[in-house]
Amino acid sequence: MIMMTEQFVSANITPLDSLDTLSPHEVAKLQDRNQAGLYPLFRQCALAVLNCGSELDSTKQVLEKHKDFDIRVSHKHRGVQLELINAPASAFVDGEIIQGIREHMFSVLRDLLYVVDELDICCDELEEGEQVTNMVFHILRHANAIEPHIKPNLVVCWGGHSISRDEYIYTKQVGYELGLRGFSVCTGCGPGAMKGPMKGATIAHAKQRVTDARYLGVSEPGIIAAESPNPIVNELIIMPDIEKRLEAFVRLGHGIIVFPGGAGTAEEILYMLGVLLHERNNNVPFPFIFTGPEGSEAYFETVDRFIRATLGDQAAELYEIVVGDPYDVAVKMKAGLERVTEYRKATGESFHFNWQLHIPSEFQQPFEPTHENMAALDLTSDQPDYLLAATLRKALSGIVAGNVKEPGIRAIEEHGPFELSGEPEMVEALDTLLAAFVEQRRMKINYEEYQPCYRLVQDEPA
Amino acid sequence: MIMMTEQFVSANITPLDSLDTLSPHEVAKLQDRNQAGLYPLFRQCALAVLNCGSELDSTKQVLEKHKDFDIRVSHKHRGVQLELINAPASAFVDGEIIQGIREHMFSVLRDLLYVVDELDICCDELEEGEQVTNMVFHILRHANAIEPHIKPNLVVCWGGHSISRDEYIYTKQVGYELGLRGFSVCTGCGPGAMKGPMKGATIAHAKQRVTDARYLGVSEPGIIAAESPNPIVNELIIMPDIEKRLEAFVRLGHGIIVFPGGAGTAEEILYMLGVLLHERNNNVPFPFIFTGPEGSEAYFETVDRFIRATLGDQAAELYEIVVGDPYDVAVKMKAGLERVTEYRKATGESFHFNWQLHIPSEFQQPFEPTHENMAALDLTSDQPDYLLAATLRKALSGIVAGNVKEPGIRAIEEHGPFELSGEPEMVEALDTLLAAFVEQRRMKINYEEYQPCYRLVQDEPA
Amino acid sequence: MIMMTEQFVSANITPLDSLDTLSPHEVAKLQDRNQAGLYPLFRQCALAVLNCGSELDSTKQVLEKHKDFDIRVSHKHRGVQLELINAPASAFVDGEIIQGIREHMFSVLRDLLYVVDELDICCDELEEGEQVTNMVFHILRHANAIEPHIKPNLVVCWGGHSISRDEYIYTKQVGYELGLRGFSVCTGCGPGAMKGPMKGATIAHAKQRVTDARYLGVSEPGIIAAESPNPIVNELIIMPDIEKRLEAFVRLGHGIIVFPGGAGTAEEILYMLGVLLHERNNNVPFPFIFTGPEGSEAYFETVDRFIRATLGDQAAELYEIVVGDPYDVAVKMKAGLERVTEYRKATGESFHFNWQLHIPSEFQQPFEPTHENMAALDLTSDQPDYLLAATLRKALSGIVAGNVKEPGIRAIEEHGPFELSGEPEMVEALDTLLAAFVEQRRMKINYEEYQPCYRLVQDEPA
Amino acid sequence: MIMMTEQFVSANITPLDSLDTLSPHEVAKLQDRNQAGLYPLFRQCALAVLNCGSELDSTKQVLEKHKDFDIRVSHKHRGVQLELINAPASAFVDGEIIQGIREHMFSVLRDLLYVVDELDICCDELEEGEQVTNMVFHILRHANAIEPHIKPNLVVCWGGHSISRDEYIYTKQVGYELGLRGFSVCTGCGPGAMKGPMKGATIAHAKQRVTDARYLGVSEPGIIAAESPNPIVNELIIMPDIEKRLEAFVRLGHGIIVFPGGAGTAEEILYMLGVLLHERNNNVPFPFIFTGPEGSEAYFETVDRFIRATLGDQAAELYEIVVGDPYDVAVKMKAGLERVTEYRKATGESFHFNWQLHIPSEFQQPFEPTHENMAALDLTSDQPDYLLAATLRKALSGIVAGNVKEPGIRAIEEHGPFELSGEPEMVEALDTLLAAFVEQRRMKINYEEYQPCYRLVQDEPA
Repeated sequence: MIMMTEQFVSANITPLDSLDTLSPHEVAKLQDRNQAGLYPLFRQCALAVLNCGSELDSTKQVLEKHKDFDIRVSHKHRGVQLELINAPASAFVDGEIIQGIREHMFSVLRDLLYVVDELDICCDELEEGEQVTNMVFHILRHANAIEPHIKPNLVVCWGGHSISRDEYIYTKQVGYELGLRGFSVCTGCGPGAMKGPMKGATIAHAKQRVTDARYLGVSEPGIIAAESPNPIVNELIIMPDIEKRLEAFVRLGHGIIVFPGGAGTAEEILYMLGVLLHERNNNVPFPFIFTGPEGSEAYFETVDRFIRATLGDQAAELYEIVVGDPYDVAVKMKAGLERVTEYRKATGESFHFNWQLHIPSEFQQPFEPTHENMAALDLTSDQPDYLLAATLRKALSGIVAGNVKEPGIRAIEEHGPFELSGEPEMVEALDTLLAAFVEQRRMKINYEEYQPCYRLVQDEPA
Repeated sequence: MIMMTEQFVSANITPLDSLDTLSPHEVAKLQDRNQAGLYPLFRQCALAVLNCGSELDSTKQVLEKHKDFDIRVSHKHRGVQLELINAPASAFVDGEIIQGIREHMFSVLRDLLYVVDELDICCDELEEGEQVTNMVFHILRHANAIEPHIKPNLVVCWGGHSISRDEYIYTKQVGYELGLRGFSVCTGCGPGAMKGPMKGATIAHAKQRVTDARYLGVSEPGIIAAESPNPIVNELIIMPDIEKRLEAFVRLGHGIIVFPGGAGTAEEILYMLGVLLHERNNNVPFPFIFTGPEGSEAYFETVDRFIRATLGDQAAELYEIVVGDPYDVAVKMKAGLERVTEYRKATGESFHFNWQLHIPSEFQQPFEPTHENMAALDLTSDQPDYLLAATLRKALSGIVAGNVKEPGIRAIEEHGPFELSGEPEMVEALDTLLAAFVEQRRMKINYEEYQPCYRLVQDEPA
Repeated sequence: MIMMTEQFVSANITPLDSLDTLSPHEVAKLQDRNQAGLYPLFRQCALAVLNCGSELDSTKQVLEKHKDFDIRVSHKHRGVQLELINAPASAFVDGEIIQGIREHMFSVLRDLLYVVDELDICCDELEEGEQVTNMVFHILRHANAIEPHIKPNLVVCWGGHSISRDEYIYTKQVGYELGLRGFSVCTGCGPGAMKGPMKGATIAHAKQRVTDARYLGVSEPGIIAAESPNPIVNELIIMPDIEKRLEAFVRLGHGIIVFPGGAGTAEEILYMLGVLLHERNNNVPFPFIFTGPEGSEAYFETVDRFIRATLGDQAAELYEIVVGDPYDVAVKMKAGLERVTEYRKATGESFHFNWQLHIPSEFQQPFEPTHENMAALDLTSDQPDYLLAATLRKALSGIVAGNVKEPGIRAIEEHGPFELSGEPEMVEALDTLLAAFVEQRRMKINYEEYQPCYRLVQDEPA
Repeated sequence: MIMMTEQFVSANITPLDSLDTLSPHEVAKLQDRNQAGLYPLFRQCALAVLNCGSELDSTKQVLEKHKDFDIRVSHKHRGVQLELINAPASAFVDGEIIQGIREHMFSVLRDLLYVVDELDICCDELEEGEQVTNMVFHILRHANAIEPHIKPNLVVCWGGHSISRDEYIYTKQVGYELGLRGFSVCTGCGPGAMKGPMKGATIAHAKQRVTDARYLGVSEPGIIAAESPNPIVNELIIMPDIEKRLEAFVRLGHGIIVFPGGAGTAEEILYMLGVLLHERNNNVPFPFIFTGPEGSEAYFETVDRFIRATLGDQAAELYEIVVGDPYDVAVKMKAGLERVTEYRKATGESFHFNWQLHIPSEFQQPFEPTHENMAALDLTSDQPDYLLAATLRKALSGIVAGNVKEPGIRAIEEHGPFELSGEPEMVEALDTLLAAFVEQRRMKINYEEYQPCYRLVQDEPA
């Protein structure tokens, strides 16, 4: 039975088979509304999935707008049902839920149960760093995201959820060229630069009769409400936190394309640069291309200047900038993937998971962006490049949290903006970067109201 | 081995399995360059398929530009190969042919061989009209286009190959709404309004996980060079002539949407109206919706006025006009398809082929648009509506031929424009309609150069 | 609605999709009970298919026992239905038709319609011999029996329908060894040696996870009632006559195994020897193995002696005899198929149809076994080996007809046994062979009642 | 590279994809030859799987005969390889491993890793009984053995691995009748009555075009070496111990057929009777049929008399005995499965796992058959029926261990036969039963050498 108001729909949805193979014990966990229970997290992620197409990118606003949303797991003859109460109407067509969204509901459920339930024991005897990597591997394998023996062809696309019309069309064109070459696409699964490449690739895959194309969306509970997965995503994976999400990107993906974006995109760039700057990864080929349409030169100059100012020119050698040429991007990526393939063959590395890439623990440990932790970040140049990249990554991660994640927004409301301090040159470089993002309206979809969630302070010279 | 110049590629393409099941006798026919042989027709259709994405819509120009194109069937170990010489480069990605185009090559081959070879005997003992219908059925069944037991869900989209950007985007939006409801799309398989709905539906089908969606393109040798099939088309069918092509549309399709277009679209509209006006079809439900974006009101008024002026108001009751509302179009089509389903169940008609629709022989017999035949058309009102519709259909068919088909263009070059004469009111109505098409740039893609291929003459009052 | 008596069932069976894509015109042909109509042939073949498991091998007895059997094609909502009246109960399990048998019904229908309807025109411009071969190819392709690009792996098994328990178990063991090596099996699709290899192969294919194994049964309307297809057969093909059936075996199959059998098996052996003896086939490799269990030595000696006596020792070099060693048979066949593969590669011949094998017209022209034609057979040694083989093949074909085919049995009843005359040595050899078949109970399942349908006469010395 | 001696083969086998998605950490575990490592268990189970077709049913003898067998996991380019050294030749055909056996190797690997690695934490907060059931569910789900929404159709077949030829043929006939009705088959996956029903069902499934039939084999490490899985088994599951194996049978299966067997079969019967006798299961329908060919009446009388003597007549109402009528067995099972379906619908129980069946903890706790534990068994009548059944089950489980399991055989060698004592009537009934098994040669395949591994002692009257 379907009940619709203008904006909300209440409906029972038939589960995918996977739900009916839950044990009563698992169903109980999903319904457990206590602090320790899974219900709050499940409700939040389910809402995010259903909220697809919304223009809100503040988790807090999403949750407030949909405070009457509820989801119940009920037993019926022959199986279990999901009962949705006051779900966003945009997830439905003529009263029936869009199939891609229905699938996503169960991806969420699968990953939440797995992380809570089966995971923590998997690797007690390993050291800490290996444990994290092993956990990332286990979550991905459990989600069927590990596909052995496929020649490297998974291109990760990063970039802003809030981009201009021209930039959006450009991401579709790049996706189209990738799709013509049979590549699969992996993104953070929200709107903007996370959606465009998938749309373009879908059309190209139809023309090339590629029926097993993968559109991977990798998210995490903290961000998903701000970046509702696009229903084209045919493999949605919810990693436990942003650090494991980033590790999933770089271990699954074979090459990365960065479109214009804001603080989140900068966080991703710094993560990747920091990893690649570590000496143990010196020889690992990893295609890394920054690209945007004609007119985006200024943006990439800003980013490039920031990287050179903070991490030095050798960091700038790790990526390539292409402006206004989707064909060239695809051709360069193809060549890069050939190099990756050769290297994996030569070193005996599997195609499906980049075990050999060393990810220093500074990138693996979850960073909680409290005012205290943000203030303590060491923005100075007297540390190895990769550690500085790790620190800058944390700073930007905190800014993303302050912009769109629920606890971050709440913390800013209570205690005012985060304070970041450091060497004058470092702070200045960061200031320039962030100011450009604000000016270019890349921080939030509703840019008119944007209030910076950070304050930059230059250390007094000693 | 691939050889590429700027615009042309020579390549051997691996055949689909279907080619390897040709008999030596059939291969010989494809290579027979005599008048009676299949080679000339095969070459022309193959070129059209490869020429996808071109902006040329004059068959004559296409053939001239590609006069060095050649196609050979050669025997190799383990099978047969197609050798392409000087093929249009746009059909290739990094030297490899786009898979959809490769499939289309073999659809062409399949249909040409079948029509020449196996068909003519199929129904000697039937009367003429039944023979034509039976032939249409046999060609479609041989092409695997008959799928029994699928609830009516195939929407035919008609409209111009030369339409504005806004109109094109609108056709995508309508296709998207159709796709969200799981409908398949059938068009004449060229650019513009024949491509947009398929692109939109492709994205929606991806979101709805519809993996067996049909994108049917129905063409004929005379028009295909001017309307290269879009590679999204996953079932390409080459009917022997325009009359059987039109019959295929209305017997396979369950509802029809008409977007803005030119003479070809008007021909299609008149065909459909003529059929539906025949008394034997009085009760057969057939959803028939004219639609375009905001701003296309004027166009539809022109068409509507022409229909009322010539065929009368009762003809105007057979269609519905929707402006600027893709959602409404899809919802109305869905309701219409429900009625079709009910009617077929009630009358015991199959879902996959509309046997019961009566198509008068005036619509089935091939009309050859010579100057003589055009001049002989009886544009007067003292005949049954459906016959007048048939006559007007022929007039417009001749104009399409004069615009884009090879023999038509040649005839116009030699003998000047076709002359059409009739009752003053009739001629005036036609004049207004065609003038509007010219003014709205709907006759040809390169509208600047458009020279009308017709001249209208009012009969002297008796 | 199902009505069962002890032995008969009346039921409506849901058609496979293929039936619903029949045109009304085709349905009418199937229902046409006139001489020229398809009904009598369709009824007879349908009955044969349904009669699976019966012990009757006389077509005449089968038809008499089931004289109340009827089959009707009726129109129902959403499609066409087959109505069976008084069908053999053995085709049903708990009132539902066995799926394999249901498929066979529609294979019959497909092939009968194709041969009557679409075929005859396919190759007017070819010479006679090519025409027959082309027709065989077209029927097989239309039945989807042509699978390109599969490495030669189709083993034809010939042998009697009336064999001992030990022989039957042995055919299963050979089939098992073939199946373990991934080979597909093709037989005449009746009981005995036509069924055993398929059963054995089915078990082996299950163990080897071969899910696309082919169990081809090739029959013809004259014999099918005496040799009801086993439901394991997953591709049933009805060729128009015995000559085209034999041609289908040798053009589709890549190697042949002969188990003990009677006159029909001897006919098959002579066909194959005659073809291979023709000089144009001198170099064509064709694995040809005669085999049976321990205890069958005597049988093969009889056959071998007959061949040497009539066709000479060089004919005996074309086959190999293996007794009591299924493993050895399979290993030899595997080696033989490797040679076939090499040869096809070297000569550019396709894997799926042996175009290059020359079949002399004496083997292609239908032989009608009337008393007159039988008497006219030239059983003398002063002719090329392959022609003598053709003549002997006809003699044996006539004896099979007299044993089990309907017009043959009737002719014998009216006019007494066929008379065969020839050179004393030839007649003697034949006499020995046939006497052995009678003595070994290989002529008919109900051997007690066997009355020879032939009389041998030695020519007077000139 | 393959090296073959008469009986042994050394080969590298390409892994199924699943192996390449192992983490390095998991590969290390499989290679760990320490006590705690997985290597010894993996080697033993792998050997069992490869040893298929052997006539040895003593685990100890199998291990001794193959003491040179070794299995190594090695890294190669693009993945992991299994290296087999001195594997039983019967697992190979022309040097290539039988695909079904290759699959089984990876089923073993999957289940061993899961049980060791991921499982133990799954259900800390449950009570003990629920924990066991939950663990059984998790192992089965992880092995993809849980298929929701399939109407109850899984028939468990129990019976001896050492049965007569007639009995074996009968099990095939019953399997054939089950297969004709579309039922899937689950057994303990060894030879004899565990293999026959699968072979019969395979032929019937081929005739019925059932392509998704399940042939489930449920084993456990202690027994698998004595009961090598038949390669027809397409889902092999290794449960951790006999108790969980039995629980898997009754929670997955929808009905049970018992063929003649020995101590192991009697253990299974007592398990089932004990469970069904518990009052919480009073209303749960569970088809339970004992059957064998003509001539097996004596056997079933022995069993029936034993049950009545120990558990009383009401226990005998839980099963039905059918002699020599495979058709009747299948028809009765079909009716029983209908009742199961109705009951599950009425009670909201899932079709794929019988959660509601109560299994008392006396049946769940692993029983270790030491001399001490065997001697302590309380074979007296003053306890609830279901507890007596549990005790008798343990006694028989110990006898199976003494007959075929490795630690059991070793214990008997060291300390002499197990001693079982109890009430005179009880002991007498047991004695009669076991003596009959010995006499009927059901204890071991090599019955000539059978030395009872037990001694029965009657308690002195108090």
